[in-house]
Amino acid sequence: MNLEQLREERPLVHHITNEVVMNFTANGLLAFGGSPVMSKEKEEIEEMAGIANAIVLNIGTVRKEDLETMIKAGRTANKAGVPVLLDPVGAGATTFRKQAVQRIVNEVDISVVKGNAGEIGALADIPLKVKGVDSEEGGDAEVIALEAAKTLQTRVVVTGETDVISDGKDFFTSSHGTPLLGYITGAGCLLGSLIAACISIEEEKIEAVQFAINFYNKAAERAEKKAGGPGTFIPHLLDELGETDD
Amino acid sequence: MNLEQLREERPLVHHITNEVVMNFTANGLLAFGGSPVMSKEKEEIEEMAGIANAIVLNIGTVRKEDLETMIKAGRTANKAGVPVLLDPVGAGATTFRKQAVQRIVNEVDISVVKGNAGEIGALADIPLKVKGVDSEEGGDAEVIALEAAKTLQTRVVVTGETDVISDGKDFFTSSHGTPLLGYITGAGCLLGSLIAACISIEEEKIEAVQFAINFYNKAAERAEKKAGGPGTFIPHLLDELGETDD
Amino acid sequence: MNLEQLREERPLVHHITNEVVMNFTANGLLAFGGSPVMSKEKEEIEEMAGIANAIVLNIGTVRKEDLETMIKAGRTANKAGVPVLLDPVGAGATTFRKQAVQRIVNEVDISVVKGNAGEIGALADIPLKVKGVDSEEGGDAEVIALEAAKTLQTRVVVTGETDVISDGKDFFTSSHGTPLLGYITGAGCLLGSLIAACISIEEEKIEAVQFAINFYNKAAERAEKKAGGPGTFIPHLLDELGETDD
Repeated sequence: MNLEQLREERPLVHHITNEVVMNFTANGLLAFGGSPVMSKEKEEIEEMAGIANAIVLNIGTVRKEDLETMIKAGRTANKAGVPVLLDPVGAGATTFRKQAVQRIVNEVDISVVKGNAGEIGALADIPLKVKGVDSEEGGDAEVIALEAAKTLQTRVVVTGETDVISDGKDFFTSSHGTPLLGYITGAGCLLGSLIAACISIEEEKIEAVQFAINFYNKAAERAEKKAGGPGTFIPHLLDELGETDD
Repeated sequence: MNLEQLREERPLVHHITNEVVMNFTANGLLAFGGSPVMSKEKEEIEEMAGIANAIVLNIGTVRKEDLETMIKAGRTANKAGVPVLLDPVGAGATTFRKQAVQRIVNEVDISVVKGNAGEIGALADIPLKVKGVDSEEGGDAEVIALEAAKTLQTRVVVTGETDVISDGKDFFTSSHGTPLLGYITGAGCLLGSLIAACISIEEEKIEAVQFAINFYNKAAERAEKKAGGPGTFIPHLLDELGETDD
Repeated sequence: MNLEQLREERPLVHHITNEVVMNFTANGLLAFGGSPVMSKEKEEIEEMAGIANAIVLNIGTVRKEDLETMIKAGRTANKAGVPVLLDPVGAGATTFRKQAVQRIVNEVDISVVKGNAGEIGALADIPLKVKGVDSEEGGDAEVIALEAAKTLQTRVVVTGETDVISDGKDFFTSSHGTPLLGYITGAGCLLGSLIAACISIEEEKIEAVQFAINFYNKAAERAEKKAGGPGTFIPHLLDELGETDD
């Protein structure tokens, strides 16, 4: 995965995403080296998705009428061979959300699904032993990632204290990061945008996903050292996303 | 009011709120110790409101179609005994807003209404002597809070240089804070979220409201000392919301 | 252009703007000395636009149904003699956007149009020699500003490394600023809000536009010196917008 190339090409990542995190996500992706676009108007969605290098579908504040737009954008991307990342925010919280993400995975080829254990479990219909999920051992997260990747037949990222990536055969983990990521809104959503940017320029998708996660977690660790709390952590995290890893 | 307990339980506060302040509000509530959720999709609103520990209804950028959703969420909360906070942003500015908030207070049992003198005056149909409102004496704010609490038969917070709380019998004031709160957007909206979190875990509602306001104002005072202006005030305020008072 | 007067009057700028930048724009305008309002509910738009001192129409995340609301707001402002600024975000990206902005300029008297070379070119149907646009020479930007101002019969601002202002007869440039403005979302959108505030209190519109651009660029230069990257640049920029130039 070549970060220099990404920063030169500045891949256009089209987001149909949640209203809470739009600004933060856009700033994070800009700092990292991508180029964010956000629109959910059905009339322009095919044209917009058609010029994008990657698509992010995030259901954080999805409305019923936006679901069709998400599917239209995803299918346009599929036809163009452009990768689609799905972030099933709160998928387990309501029947509406669970059905929404299941419709998306049925109708769109998803390159990467990224969520926490509860969200991925809800999407892939994996019953969770509630205890242990998000636990330090991370044992369940590995099983969930692997099982979900098999069921959904795509790559799956389960975020938590240890992030787990699986392609249905193997799994990889990243235990970097900081608890501060859990005290700011959109930390996971922004990670989704970075992954989308990386898989848009790298053929080896799992390598691209690993790169994005490790880069993000290490940037968060550096930002944590400069921060006095979750508030000052945010601008420092954005700064660090614009740096190199070395 | 037990802050430690709040931070352990992390009460889920469901917001149907204004688009300008979603990110700031979510980050502020997370820093303080609550757990924000934001959704205005009618299809999931009863399920979502049903799992929340408190509801915030904020009409800052309300659309006509969201009014029904707000009322649905509020009634679900009422049935479950979950407190509802109403923030009548700009209630006096247009006929649409004034009618919207009056419909909400007619159809939903509100635990706390929070707004500035103009907003509370518009909601409770109290004619304002424009001069003196927001004045340092705060005389009018006390009258408005008391009268509105009587008319609306609920607890009322009137924000300003001095914040006033009334339950229709007594009133309490908090004169801490900083003028910088008037130079950032959503300062009042975030206070509403903190109040909602506090009343969700504390039986003595007025005590919970007082705690939230005092905590917020003192955090703002500490943040002001570290800030170079309204921009750097924001991350420092978020940091301070995660601290303890002592 | 009298900044002190602006900060005393705190002109109310009503925005129908894009969801990505609402919070940042509101905070920037507040810091500068204006008073932001944001609403796109059709039922209140005439009343809201009727009390505003300036209107910003920004199509960054425009939905089909909001186009009518924008035109309604613009016409209300026109009747009241209140200035309207148009920000044709991404006008060249899709047919929907191109038609949307062209409908707006046909049906509303616009005081100032502000965009980058590609956006202004798309709006005014000026074919772009892609090379050279956004280049340091800025040669094309000057031609585009002048031509667009003639075609649209209004004032035009073309942003880029050098910002160009034209009234169709002359043009003026501002080459201050920092590349960091290109690494945060909404930098151009916020400039639009500052311009709108300035033209609302100053009869000499071109002078007001020049003032806003120069003030913004110089604030950005000061902020850059305090910033470690695009993330920390944001709060410092907001701080500097509250300062005076001297």
